Amino acid sequence: MSVESKKFMSSVDVKARKLAAEKLAKAFEKVVEAILNGEEPKLVIPKRTLSNTIYDKERGLLLLGSATFERSFLDVREARKFMQTALMAKIIYEALINNEYPTIRDLYYRGKHSIRYRDHKGRTEEENTWDEQKESDAVLRDIEVYTGLLREEMLILSKEKGKVVGDMRIRSGDDVIDLSKMGHGAYAIEPTPDLIEFIDVNAEFVLVVEKDAVFQQLHRAGFWRKYKAILVTSAGQPDRATRRFVRRLNEELNLPVYILTDADPYGWYIYSVFRIGSITLSYESERLATPKAKFLGVSMTDIFGDKGKKPYLTEEERKNFIIKAKKADIKRAQELLNYEWFKTEKWQKEINIFLQKQSKLEIEALTGKGLYFLMDTYLPTKIQTQDFIE
Amino acid sequence: MSVESKKFMSSVDVKARKLAAEKLAKAFEKVVEAILNGEEPKLVIPKRTLSNTIYDKERGLLLLGSATFERSFLDVREARKFMQTALMAKIIYEALINNEYPTIRDLYYRGKHSIRYRDHKGRTEEENTWDEQKESDAVLRDIEVYTGLLREEMLILSKEKGKVVGDMRIRSGDDVIDLSKMGHGAYAIEPTPDLIEFIDVNAEFVLVVEKDAVFQQLHRAGFWRKYKAILVTSAGQPDRATRRFVRRLNEELNLPVYILTDADPYGWYIYSVFRIGSITLSYESERLATPKAKFLGVSMTDIFGDKGKKPYLTEEERKNFIIKAKKADIKRAQELLNYEWFKTEKWQKEINIFLQKQSKLEIEALTGKGLYFLMDTYLPTKIQTQDFIE
Repeated sequence: MSVESKKFMSSVDVKARKLAAEKLAKAFEKVVEAILNGEEPKLVIPKRTLSNTIYDKERGLLLLGSATFERSFLDVREARKFMQTALMAKIIYEALINNEYPTIRDLYYRGKHSIRYRDHKGRTEEENTWDEQKESDAVLRDIEVYTGLLREEMLILSKEKGKVVGDMRIRSGDDVIDLSKMGHGAYAIEPTPDLIEFIDVNAEFVLVVEKDAVFQQLHRAGFWRKYKAILVTSAGQPDRATRRFVRRLNEELNLPVYILTDADPYGWYIYSVFRIGSITLSYESERLATPKAKFLGVSMTDIFGDKGKKPYLTEEERKNFIIKAKKADIKRAQELLNYEWFKTEKWQKEINIFLQKQSKLEIEALTGKGLYFLMDTYLPTKIQTQDFIE
Repeated sequence: MSVESKKFMSSVDVKARKLAAEKLAKAFEKVVEAILNGEEPKLVIPKRTLSNTIYDKERGLLLLGSATFERSFLDVREARKFMQTALMAKIIYEALINNEYPTIRDLYYRGKHSIRYRDHKGRTEEENTWDEQKESDAVLRDIEVYTGLLREEMLILSKEKGKVVGDMRIRSGDDVIDLSKMGHGAYAIEPTPDLIEFIDVNAEFVLVVEKDAVFQQLHRAGFWRKYKAILVTSAGQPDRATRRFVRRLNEELNLPVYILTDADPYGWYIYSVFRIGSITLSYESERLATPKAKFLGVSMTDIFGDKGKKPYLTEEERKNFIIKAKKADIKRAQELLNYEWFKTEKWQKEINIFLQKQSKLEIEALTGKGLYFLMDTYLPTKIQTQDFIE
């Protein structure tokens, strides 16, 4: 089956899985050696705890610190976790050499079964390898930090929401795709964006829009064509693939990245995930975050104005468009106020205006004012006058 | 601005909006005439109530009945609704002639403002045109049924989740897109799928997968290439564009459509939305539903077997993969049991097995068993032996 199925697979994947299988096997070589030598097998794994998550101010990234922990097979408290880690590595390795493309949900199912054993009194006992996906997901993360292989490199797939259009050619799999020839539709970004090759690009910046519906509008009105932009949507909280894709646009093509979200703590957090990474996945920031990404708007001073800055909304529009902040929004804003990476003058001001006015605004309020207001006034002015927050 | 912005717009849209603007204006001509003639303006609108929603067994569609209601301006109980309808029509018409692409959220913002008036005692009063999007959405639906124009025809956009790959060429906007050349990514379906032109197709059937992650796996393993399929995902509950796109594949290209969902009431409902339409949008079934769509699986008899049918799962696999149904699942299944369109022998059996076993299963349980099991055993066998439910 393996030869037969390879025929329908991209040559890029065939190469990628060979590399990953080798790296994965190598990472567990020491464990096998220890067992063969009659020594206790153990794994030394970087700690993925909050205390080992560090905000690197200089690089502008949330990173994993240098602390590690040991997981040894012969320790009763760790034997179960050791078994889970070895089981997960085995499942992934088999998937790689069998040309499979598991998802994290698959990996959970693939490993889930009962182990029968005898306890110290000789009674037969039964225990599940894992009961919930939460458990298998955590084990997968351990393997990512242990091997230095991201799950995408191990051809583990996931659902994807990110889309892109723009004057740019890429190679994905064995195809060349012209992202300026998507008609009214868009290109849905693949789950393994590291395998994409950038061929050529004719654009001056990247605009990432939180909302798919606004992306559709700007696309349809020809925004990216008129302003030489690569237009991306994360369709809500960005997934890993969209984050990696945006990072690569910034790093490899030197395109400035602007993020456009709703004016509320949820929107700010989307920006901060793009820019510095997320707390639970800090070990991936190094490759997924875009520390130079800029928050273009919608900002509180866009709504209410500032010294020397006229607001983009009239008083009448504010009355009609503004939504009163909920308690949860206020609480969230107070939390963000204390995050290290929001401790810049502009962000503190932004959050404090929000707390004072208790008001939020959706991007759609701006398209409600007029799509061409958003496209030909708001966005170009914001970019030209460098009116963004970092 | 209008000429300038048209340059960046597809010629398809320019034509579509001219047509819609004419039809919309024509539909309201009588109202204007009545006003000019000093008569009472009124609108006769088809009723969008449950009692006027009929399941047409012969055609296999949920349809709107023939009942209508009158909305007259001079009736105090209806004046507000009349005003809202006229306001919405005006906003849409202006958006059409100004080359805008509003979303339903936009329309809400565009219309939202306070109207000042004097009451019968001469006091100044204030009233909002509408307070919530629920209200403006309902008015938009009234306009759809009143004019016979779907919102997509009026260039009203929305967020879209549907994706497609397969050996097929389409024209969207001014571009020709080869859906077999999407690399590891996919083509994100546009919000106005009626404007797509099918150029040529080399496929034998359409497989619609509920879950994006499973779509990614089948795509990557080359399922559509090997089995000559058009592969679509709705990424959960299907949006209007995905439903219309699938309907067109079935109707215009004569391709059989198979739906693959989780084995649970939520999955069955996704199938039924594709096949017969949804209750709240019954006026659109005529164009959005695919009455010949077949539920390929995962079915209860796939899990547990049947007379003369071996189950696809072993007892051990059932033990590991099956999820216990929740109370809400049971309740939902009992509701579905009574829907007219689930009153076929096979569906009643399916639902009753579920109620008896109180068990559900995700598609990922099958990929957990092996992606090539799903791709090369389960799916081809189900299709070849016509083992589906209608």
